Amino acid sequence: MARVVVDVMLKPEILDPEGRAIQGALTRLGLDGVSDVRQGKRFEIALDGEVSEERAETLNRLAAELLANPVIEDYRLRVEEGQ
Amino acid sequence: MARVVVDVMLKPEILDPEGRAIQGALTRLGLDGVSDVRQGKRFEIALDGEVSEERAETLNRLAAELLANPVIEDYRLRVEEGQ
Repeated sequence: MARVVVDVMLKPEILDPEGRAIQGALTRLGLDGVSDVRQGKRFEIALDGEVSEERAETLNRLAAELLANPVIEDYRLRVEEGQ
Repeated sequence: MARVVVDVMLKPEILDPEGRAIQGALTRLGLDGVSDVRQGKRFEIALDGEVSEERAETLNRLAAELLANPVIEDYRLRVEEGQ
């Protein structure tokens, strides 16, 4: 059993109006010094068995195709084995 | 400068139809052994200065109030200093 976590965030050069709204709200609600907020997505994928090299390649391909929009988003994939 | 990451995921007992749809798509597109997929949100908050105990408390309160819906979601907050 392995767990794979994929974080998908907007590229730094893409405006994030939701993050901007959250930044304003955090400041209004009492947190000072907030210089930036970015909102993204997190996927937790549970897999039976080990993550072989071939499976890792498939995962990377599908993360790029299915979970992220590579025009505006970056993704990071990490494998957390044995959970 | 500190970076705070807040991960917000549906509670395990709450159905996640989006995650289920992604699970089906991953399987159809060639990844076998996918036993579960959960979709959640990730917030990256950049803060000027250090995260004092008081600021950490404020952050925790606002994460619970603003970033997560505590009825259906769990959140995890971690501070990554010095980035």
